[in-house]
Amino acid sequence: MLTLDKIYHASHILKKVIRPTDLIYAPNICPDSNIYLKTENLQVTGSFKVRGAYYKISQLSEEEKAKGVIACSAGNHAQGVALAAAKNKIPSLICLPDGAPISKVEATKSYGAQICLVDGVYDDAYEKALELQKEQGYTFIHPFDDEDVIAGQGTIGLELLDQLPDMDAIIVPIGGGGLISGIAYAIKSLSPHIKVYGVQATGAPSMFHSLECGERKCLSNVSTIADGIAVKEPGEHTFDLCRHYVDEIVTVTDDEISTAILTLIEQQKLIAEGAGAVSVAAALFHKVPIEGKKVVCLVSGGNIDVTILSRVIKRGLLKSGRSCSLNIELLDKPGQLKGVSRIIADLGGNVIAIHHERASENSDINGCYLRVVLETRNFEHIEQIKSALTDAGYTLSN
Amino acid sequence: MLTLDKIYHASHILKKVIRPTDLIYAPNICPDSNIYLKTENLQVTGSFKVRGAYYKISQLSEEEKAKGVIACSAGNHAQGVALAAAKNKIPSLICLPDGAPISKVEATKSYGAQICLVDGVYDDAYEKALELQKEQGYTFIHPFDDEDVIAGQGTIGLELLDQLPDMDAIIVPIGGGGLISGIAYAIKSLSPHIKVYGVQATGAPSMFHSLECGERKCLSNVSTIADGIAVKEPGEHTFDLCRHYVDEIVTVTDDEISTAILTLIEQQKLIAEGAGAVSVAAALFHKVPIEGKKVVCLVSGGNIDVTILSRVIKRGLLKSGRSCSLNIELLDKPGQLKGVSRIIADLGGNVIAIHHERASENSDINGCYLRVVLETRNFEHIEQIKSALTDAGYTLSN
Repeated sequence: MLTLDKIYHASHILKKVIRPTDLIYAPNICPDSNIYLKTENLQVTGSFKVRGAYYKISQLSEEEKAKGVIACSAGNHAQGVALAAAKNKIPSLICLPDGAPISKVEATKSYGAQICLVDGVYDDAYEKALELQKEQGYTFIHPFDDEDVIAGQGTIGLELLDQLPDMDAIIVPIGGGGLISGIAYAIKSLSPHIKVYGVQATGAPSMFHSLECGERKCLSNVSTIADGIAVKEPGEHTFDLCRHYVDEIVTVTDDEISTAILTLIEQQKLIAEGAGAVSVAAALFHKVPIEGKKVVCLVSGGNIDVTILSRVIKRGLLKSGRSCSLNIELLDKPGQLKGVSRIIADLGGNVIAIHHERASENSDINGCYLRVVLETRNFEHIEQIKSALTDAGYTLSN
Repeated sequence: MLTLDKIYHASHILKKVIRPTDLIYAPNICPDSNIYLKTENLQVTGSFKVRGAYYKISQLSEEEKAKGVIACSAGNHAQGVALAAAKNKIPSLICLPDGAPISKVEATKSYGAQICLVDGVYDDAYEKALELQKEQGYTFIHPFDDEDVIAGQGTIGLELLDQLPDMDAIIVPIGGGGLISGIAYAIKSLSPHIKVYGVQATGAPSMFHSLECGERKCLSNVSTIADGIAVKEPGEHTFDLCRHYVDEIVTVTDDEISTAILTLIEQQKLIAEGAGAVSVAAALFHKVPIEGKKVVCLVSGGNIDVTILSRVIKRGLLKSGRSCSLNIELLDKPGQLKGVSRIIADLGGNVIAIHHERASENSDINGCYLRVVLETRNFEHIEQIKSALTDAGYTLSN
């Protein structure tokens, strides 16, 4: 049974291990509400997961501890379990699918876990973990459907009640539901008037869908840039807890999530991973009724692959008019490139890449294409440059 | 006269405006020291500058306040003054050079300042500001060479003595020297055994050079990605204070700064601008004697243009072996691309761009070039892929 007592106990146990992460006022995110960010992306291991993992492991018997723990994850849970095991001075084995990002494998290793790379996808790694658990007597640390794990995550709720006792609402990412279950239980037990909203990715709406159906449903596939919450089926405990304690669940698209990631970078100087940014996306895109309210967005983690980050930024620049790419049809004769360059330079566009190609199947036999990637100021600036090129007789195509 | 009393007073005055920013333990940045990050990038306006600007403005007479303030800056100082003036309910006018990044102009406007865009570079904007100051009777808020401004920045020193009283050293970015002057004065007055190290960019070593010469020197030009500390000449006050209270000044290159920015993103989930990351660069690249010590790196700001951020990330991936580009000479016959693709895929390289070109001036008349951009794990992984391609008979070139 999950009890408030257990969450308080977890809070006490976690004191030596976790950081009580900062709550940062972020007035520009949503001008018609007062938004605060609970920065669990700045937590040890880069996500909240270490809370549940550490508390769970701390509650094992000496015998269980001696045998060690096993988990299956390519992400934050892996790092949480690895660090929690190391801090408890017990061995941990993490099963990961073969294709897991190297950065995450390396991070997990660096916390002292043994790594078992399994051919295939997550489900294969999970099967392997169960098999090894049986053979070797390890304790399996579930990423969300476990009351000790849930109690560990719930400690965030207690922290928030200390940090901002008069908050009106909190917005929490949902994957399997462990995080929101613990927080909602803590908050509703102590301050039932505070609203608890959950957010899932449109491409992985397992809890959203299950609650709508009134029973746990398994999605056949999930796809989102918020890989940390791409979960096919809610847990039993978490489904029950969400049904009782969560006020509403909404979903956000990958584009909305990308915008939220970029907003956090530009306005707050914080790196969030996709799963960590869904709460901010929900506020940004008015998915929840928070006008005039004091609201906490839980930024649950920051472990985003730099390569993906680079793509999100690139896309964000394009979508906000600060970068554009133009296809310009040229006659294949000297001086053409010079003409284009001058127009762009005169208008203050900054060329960052250029690709010049003859005889594509779309061009005239004498023609060629110039593809120019530019840094621009905004959409208006892009239109200015386009008009100037058109006025000078160049043809633009897509 | 700068006094400790003034810094304490500033601390008191600033309480209603600034955030006492978090000090974050960052054990992985430099495994042989204990590094802590003072996160002034998470300060209101994204940098420490608001401290000095607000305190300065708060100390103006009612008459001065009524006339308003003027400043010249394309960066953090502009935002600091704009917000500080707004909080003091007085008008502010910020002169910026014409080419200032739109994102910074917009941010400054958003804090309520009036903007005066001046044709030319920083020096032209500065001239214009002085001219307007004389005409209109505004008070000019200097970005660093002013004792009230220095006292405001010095409040960070007091905060650190509270947050980590047993620190051994602190590493501080230096542009004009206002920040380090205030901090060094506070720290050396109270705990003289704590070392204070300053860091400048190799491309803008004005204070470094001036201290070496024993007198203030003006550099003829400065160039660094750390635009926030690209200052040609130290202030009079700041030069004197640095001479008395700073233990040592070192310099870091743009490459070292880029690596530090990427390290802060990946390990700490924090966005720092170039100027904000030089302290971390100094620790990362062992520029200061901190082995075995408890050290604070001051991350002074996070206002980096996303376009520059995107470049820093790309470069960081290349320089750490997590991305590479290969030029492969192919015979111009079917099946060649397949062969290359298979080798790369088998070794776990992830292709992110490909460019296939016939008949460059370097290639055989029957040959062609394939330029492949890959995501890789590390330099060893790149070597593996290169060897496998060479072993299979492909020729690699640069």
